[in-house]
Amino acid sequence: MVLVALIHYPVVNARGEVIASAVANLDLHDLARICRTYGVERFLVVTPLEDQQELVEEIRRHWVEGGGGRRNPHRREAMERLELLPSLESAVARARELAPGELSIYATSAREGGTVVEWEEARRALEAGRSLLLLFGTAHGLAPQVTACADGLLPPIRRGSSYRHLPVRAAVAVVLDRLLGDGAAPPP
Amino acid sequence: MVLVALIHYPVVNARGEVIASAVANLDLHDLARICRTYGVERFLVVTPLEDQQELVEEIRRHWVEGGGGRRNPHRREAMERLELLPSLESAVARARELAPGELSIYATSAREGGTVVEWEEARRALEAGRSLLLLFGTAHGLAPQVTACADGLLPPIRRGSSYRHLPVRAAVAVVLDRLLGDGAAPPP
Repeated sequence: MVLVALIHYPVVNARGEVIASAVANLDLHDLARICRTYGVERFLVVTPLEDQQELVEEIRRHWVEGGGGRRNPHRREAMERLELLPSLESAVARARELAPGELSIYATSAREGGTVVEWEEARRALEAGRSLLLLFGTAHGLAPQVTACADGLLPPIRRGSSYRHLPVRAAVAVVLDRLLGDGAAPPP
Repeated sequence: MVLVALIHYPVVNARGEVIASAVANLDLHDLARICRTYGVERFLVVTPLEDQQELVEEIRRHWVEGGGGRRNPHRREAMERLELLPSLESAVARARELAPGELSIYATSAREGGTVVEWEEARRALEAGRSLLLLFGTAHGLAPQVTACADGLLPPIRRGSSYRHLPVRAAVAVVLDRLLGDGAAPPP
């Protein structure tokens, strides 16, 4: 089982300071659709800010219980996987509750560093029946304390590249495709 | 060399009717960043609608020549690859002009059908020095006449899946990762 968490706190800004970022409506839609596409069990949206929590719940309700979902059942199907959590700790606890087997928590970053888990190793963990909780940061990425508490860090999508500005929407899609995709094969 | 074209006409709506879609500011930013990340030479934005062309040019100028790019050089670096074209035909002509070698034009779709080009075949074409122009549709996807005029159609990202609602932003990232990615390996 794979679970995805989109973290709005603690993340860093352009100066590397730890902040709580604002929730982007579009991220919720895109990540819900991507998670549904790849069969991700649950999409956990993590924010401690009460006004942001209200926003997330309002959007979720509109698409799951309200008029949005009635008009667009495909979007409802995607948004049904969204779950709001107030903190990283509660997201990890929720993932342990949902995961049938042992859970590994992998952070993601556009930068190299930390305990790197190779793609092949992550795929083997899944095959072996482990569950994965994948942590993605908003703003300028996960704060160091998040990466430190994870079981490992997935490699940057473009190793050795100086351009590290892939939208989180694209990063989630590529990471899930590398772990769960059915059409990928290694380039030479 | 790889070139990406985002087509706003001719595409289809939910009822399968051929329409010209509106340009989404976010698609321009996300696709420019994704193209920059994967070293895509040029990102061609195709729309015949004059007001939409003005919008695209205004956004491009703001990020390439204006204040946006001065404040955010990373975004400028991405947006510099964006080029506006009025039609599919002009985009193909532009791609032939830019490509150093022979050009193959591959359409993309969330549905199966047409002359399918396997991922492995597309990667081999690139290795052999061919250039690729990849066509992505907005709205509910490329109109049948676009797919018919392409040299081939890449497979759906999730073969056999009934859920075909990946955002185009995610689809572009996954397709480029499958063709140009450095970390992917085949799942079992």
